[in-house]
Order: sequence, then structure tokens, then C-alpha cells
Amino acid sequence: KKRFNIALLPGDGIGPEVIAVAKTVLQKAGSLEGLEFDFQEMPVGGAALDLVGVPMPEETFTAAKQSDAILLGAIGGYKWDKNEKHLRPEMALFYLRRDLKVFANLRPATVLPELVDASTLKKEVAEGVDMMIVRELTGGIYFGEPRGIKINENGEEVGISTEIYAAHEIDRIARVAFETARKRRGKLCSVDKANVLDASILWRKRVTALASEYPDVELSHMYVDNAAMQLIRDPKQFDTIVTNNIFGDILSDEASMITGSIGMLPSASLSESGPGLFEPIHGSAPDIAGQDKANPLATILSAAMLLKYGLGEEKAAKRIEDAVADALSKGFRTGDIYSPGNKLVGCKEMGEEVLKSV
Amino acid sequence: KKRFNIALLPGDGIGPEVIAVAKTVLQKAGSLEGLEFDFQEMPVGGAALDLVGVPMPEETFTAAKQSDAILLGAIGGYKWDKNEKHLRPEMALFYLRRDLKVFANLRPATVLPELVDASTLKKEVAEGVDMMIVRELTGGIYFGEPRGIKINENGEEVGISTEIYAAHEIDRIARVAFETARKRRGKLCSVDKANVLDASILWRKRVTALASEYPDVELSHMYVDNAAMQLIRDPKQFDTIVTNNIFGDILSDEASMITGSIGMLPSASLSESGPGLFEPIHGSAPDIAGQDKANPLATILSAAMLLKYGLGEEKAAKRIEDAVADALSKGFRTGDIYSPGNKLVGCKEMGEEVLKSV
Ligand SMILES: CC(C)[C@H](C(=O)O)[C@@H](O)C(=O)O
Ligand SMILES: CC(C)[C@H](C(=O)O)[C@@H](O)C(=O)O
Repeated sequence: KKRFNIALLPGDGIGPEVIAVAKTVLQKAGSLEGLEFDFQEMPVGGAALDLVGVPMPEETFTAAKQSDAILLGAIGGYKWDKNEKHLRPEMALFYLRRDLKVFANLRPATVLPELVDASTLKKEVAEGVDMMIVRELTGGIYFGEPRGIKINENGEEVGISTEIYAAHEIDRIARVAFETARKRRGKLCSVDKANVLDASILWRKRVTALASEYPDVELSHMYVDNAAMQLIRDPKQFDTIVTNNIFGDILSDEASMITGSIGMLPSASLSESGPGLFEPIHGSAPDIAGQDKANPLATILSAAMLLKYGLGEEKAAKRIEDAVADALSKGFRTGDIYSPGNKLVGCKEMGEEVLKSV
Repeated sequence: KKRFNIALLPGDGIGPEVIAVAKTVLQKAGSLEGLEFDFQEMPVGGAALDLVGVPMPEETFTAAKQSDAILLGAIGGYKWDKNEKHLRPEMALFYLRRDLKVFANLRPATVLPELVDASTLKKEVAEGVDMMIVRELTGGIYFGEPRGIKINENGEEVGISTEIYAAHEIDRIARVAFETARKRRGKLCSVDKANVLDASILWRKRVTALASEYPDVELSHMYVDNAAMQLIRDPKQFDTIVTNNIFGDILSDEASMITGSIGMLPSASLSESGPGLFEPIHGSAPDIAGQDKANPLATILSAAMLLKYGLGEEKAAKRIEDAVADALSKGFRTGDIYSPGNKLVGCKEMGEEVLKSV
């Protein structure tokens, strides 16, 4: 039997509910494939602030760092919204991403046939959408120096953030993207603003230079403003997208909304060698927390990504993906994806239905 | 009779066609309101590169600067796509915006009842959308220093762009936005990334501080990633949006695609005192240039914005807007907005139909 250490970071809002459900699914799928898990549950975000006064306690980070993979619920809530920057729950995400060096953020955006009506896009535009956004996660304007609010020579306040990418940072995320595209439909679109930003000019140059190593991948380039339009005009044109941290933040949220089911979308954040971080892309939804209304499927699918990308256990991952498809095809729906004719269930019941099919 | 000097910068691709049509409409609407125009037509962009070797000739800038308002067609084309950065047609836009100090870019995104089917969004989501995006146009990461591609201490290339806003730059665009919202439905949404970027933290602080001067305007704040989602989920929630240069670039293109008729959308770029710059938001469409296929309505509506925002001639502006609505309600459509049951016309014929109703 293979054994893995999994760090569970439930976090805030609906985080604990969806993590509890995803844990049982992960456990069953694993045990059917001969995998055993040691789970270590640790506080993070607002929960950690309330408990020990910081969003990312030392002990939580150590447990995460020493695990084989990390499954995170959600972070944040109204309660801590007025905190100073360094005492905001979201800072936990920064520290985690930065210190785990998970530079490659994979965000699939898929429209499942059962859920095509959930999109605000016309059916013929939304159906069949299946793309993967590869977002750079530990560089760019999120981390660049100098940054801060300074006083200029006129005694006036100036806000400064720096978009900065070194060649090796571009190369490593581009390689992940080329490899990802290769395993998908072989099309990679690199999104930048190379007609304006010098950081994008270098980005485009490095990505282009790597293309010759991946002759089986068809590389194209698109400006970010055009990409924001094309995602709405014809999202099916995209297979794999690679882009920087801030453009990836914007475009992956846009793409997720195109699928209409943000409660369905998982993500994986991978480093060169250490454990990966797996989490749903939705937030902590404090308004429905503790009411058994949350959709656990994004977290369950994040557990599938954990198995596939984090532990290399594709078979167990496939079990989970199939079980989710099964529960949906039987008509089970949480409130966020409910449409007439289906069966409305809560978070726990949805988890049980998935569990039956694992 | 009032006289105005208008600089016409047709530019590239379909630019000359749509400018020719818009000029006749502007002339008629003006003369019916007792306005006379002296037009001065000057080369810009690729056209200027071919003629005199630079995208923004001295003479063109002087004519623009000395005019009462500038009407621009479109800039760019495949032909010059491989030029070095400073010899690219798009640089003309930079120089114009920067040197005319047109910091306030107004981009309406409206779904006309006649054209609701052109959107890829479901009818019930798209119909009634009517928002104005106020984009900061002469600051931020487009112009911030330091920028460039440098060599770091490891001998590695690094691409650098700097997002930087001084308090007064934020204040002046915020004021334009509050004033704009006040004349519309009284709702202003400021879009930033204040949970991450220091430049956004100052942005939010300054915008918030001004709110007390506009008690009749309801101010809200939204993160840019959420805004990219909300524009698709429920675009009707927005009245006026204010944001920085790069987020405005991305979100205004996204919003324009939501309307489904990017060939319909005008824009105005205004300075504190000098002439304003008015242009359609679409590009030069080199693939259909010279074929009388272009939709001239975005440029005609830009001429209406020129009258309203540039010259303060609201009545003449209204004439143009009504004439456009009239031509559409009679069923005239260029190819980009054509749907069965309507009359397909070319650029010139569309212009003539609008002209009839002015
Ligand atoms: C919460 C926020 C800091 C974060 C980000 O901007 O990266 C979130 O939007 C995300 O995409 O994971
Ligand atoms: C052509 C390009 C430089 C320009 C910009 O990014 O501002 C365009 O996209 C726009 O929005 O006017």
C-alpha cells in the first residue's frame, strides 16, 4: 500500500463543509486504488486569525510544506475585511504560494453538457468549451519591487506596483504550458500586452523561443484586451492559455463565469519539486456558510487534480471525475447549478451521491 | 454661425471609409444647428509611416493640437506589424494621448434593442445593458518608469513595467467619473485590485475620499477579477465604471463584446482644457478595407460624442444619435450586425441612410 500525507486547510466560510465532503471522496477513491492517506488538518486564513492572530501560522506552513499535497477550502470573509493588509485572511494565500513556490496555476474551464444552461452565454456558444488556463502565480506585479505608497518630490502620494519577470520565470511557466497543451489538443495561446508593456515583450520573446522544442504544439499570441473579447465571442477557440499572474487572475475568472458554474471549477498550483496546492476557484461564500448549501464539486474535483497532478495517481483521479459526472447525470444539483427537472440537494447529500459512484 | 476647426485623422484600413461617411453626417447635423466646420485631414499611423516615415508626424500633431476636436478613424495593419516598437502605427495613439493629455477615456457599452441578438449572451442577460466605462488613459503601467528589458545581477534578461499613479491623477479621473455617473443613473463602480496592488490601495483611498463631494452618487468598489466575471453574469448591474489604464483596456473590450456590436461603439478621450480625441473603439480591419463593407456607425456615433463632449453641442449630437437609431429601426444593417429579415448594406449606403434621417 502507498501512503501519502495530505494537509487539509479548510479555511473560512463554506471551506470546512466542502473539505469534509471532499475528504471522504478522496479517501474512498484512494483506497480502491490501494492508496492510504494520513490527513493533517490545520487552520488558515480567518480561522487562523481568530485562533492565533495571524492568517498563516508557522505550524500550518510547516505541515503544508512537509505534506505530499495540500487541499485547501476557501479563505476570507466580511468579518476580517477591515483588517490591515498584513492581517487579512487573503495574505495566507500569498505566503503559501510564495513560500511553497507554486509558480504554475492550472485552472480548467469546462462546460459540462449537463450544465450548459447555467452559462449566461447562448447554448451554441457555451457548449463544448474545454480550456485550461495556465497562470504564472509567484511573480509579476503581485510580488515585484519597488512597491508601496510613497511621497513624490511634490509632497504628493504615489502608489507603485511593479510588473517584473525574469527570463527563467517565463521559461518555466511556458514549459508547463507547452507540456499541458501537448497532453490536450496541442494548441497553446500565450496572452500578453506586448504592444505596450516591456515585461510582455520579454514574455513573448521567451515563449516564442521555446516553441521549437515543442513542434507538436501550435503556438499563437494574443493581446489581453482581445483575449477578454474572444473568450466571450467564441470560447471554443481556446485549448490551453498561458499568461502572467494578473492577466491570469482576470481571464481565469472571466472564463470560469463563461462556464456558468464557478462552484464546479477546481485548480492546481504546482512547484518544481515540493507539494502542490489544490483548491476550488470559488470563494468562501460567507452568506451561505454553515447552511449545508455549498456545492462541494469544485473541491471534490480539486481532490481529483491532487491525485493526478500532485501524486501522479491518474486512476484514482479518474474515479472521482467519473463519479462527479455520474451524480450530475442522475440529476443531483446544489442550488447554484439547479435547474427545473433536477433534484435539489445540499452539500452533504451531493457528497454522498458522488461517494456512491466512486 | 459658430465655426469649429475639426482635425480628421482617417488612419489605416477601414479608417478612411468610415471617416468619409462620418464627416458628411457631422456636417449635416451641424449645419442644421447653425454650426460650420473647417476640416483639416492629416495622415496618422501606418498611412503616415508610408508617407513620411513616422507614425505621428509633427504637422499632424500640430493640426490636432490646434483644432477644436479630433475625429480619428483607425490605426494599424499587418503591413507594419513587424516594425520596431517606435515605428509601429499604434505609437501614434500613445503620442496623441500623451501629448494631448487626454486622460479621460469614455467608452459607452450599450445594447440597442434592435441589436440584442448580436450578443453571444442570452437575450435576457444582454437586453437593456447601458454602461459607461471611464478609463484613465495617460498614466499607469502604460507610461510608468522604470520600464524596459534589463540585465539582472545573474546576467539574465528581466522585463519591467511600472504601474504608478499619483494622487492628482487618480483624483482627476475620479471626478470625471463622478460627474459622468451624476448625469446617468447615479451609480459609480470603481474597479481595482486593492487586495494585492499598492497602486490600487491608493486608487481606492482617493476615490473613496472624493465620494463625500458627490452625495448623489452611489459609490461601490469591485476587484478587477470579480468585475470580469460580473460583466458576464449580470452586465445590467453596471451604470458607470471607473478604472485604471490597463484594467480599462481589458474591461472595456470585454464590455464591448458583450454588446455583440463592436462596430457600433464610439469613444471620447478628454483633457482638462485642450481638444478631445474621438474615435470608434474597433480596429482598422485590414481584411475588409476598401471593400465598402465596414460599419460606419461607431465613427458616426463618435462624431456625436465629439459634438456633445468636445464642443458642447448637445442638440446636434442628439440629431446624429436619433438618425442612427432611425436607420437601424428601418432594418439597415452592415455585415457585422446583419441578421435575417434585415437589409444588408455597405458602408456608404449605411451612411446615406443615416444622413437622410439627420
Ligand atoms: C484573493 C486574491 C488575492 C487571489 C488572487 O488575486 O490571486 C484570487 O483572486 C485568486 O485568483 O486566487
Ligand atoms: C492599440 C492599443 C495600444 C490600445 C491600448 O491598449 O490602449 C487599444 O487596445 C485601445 O484600447 O485603445
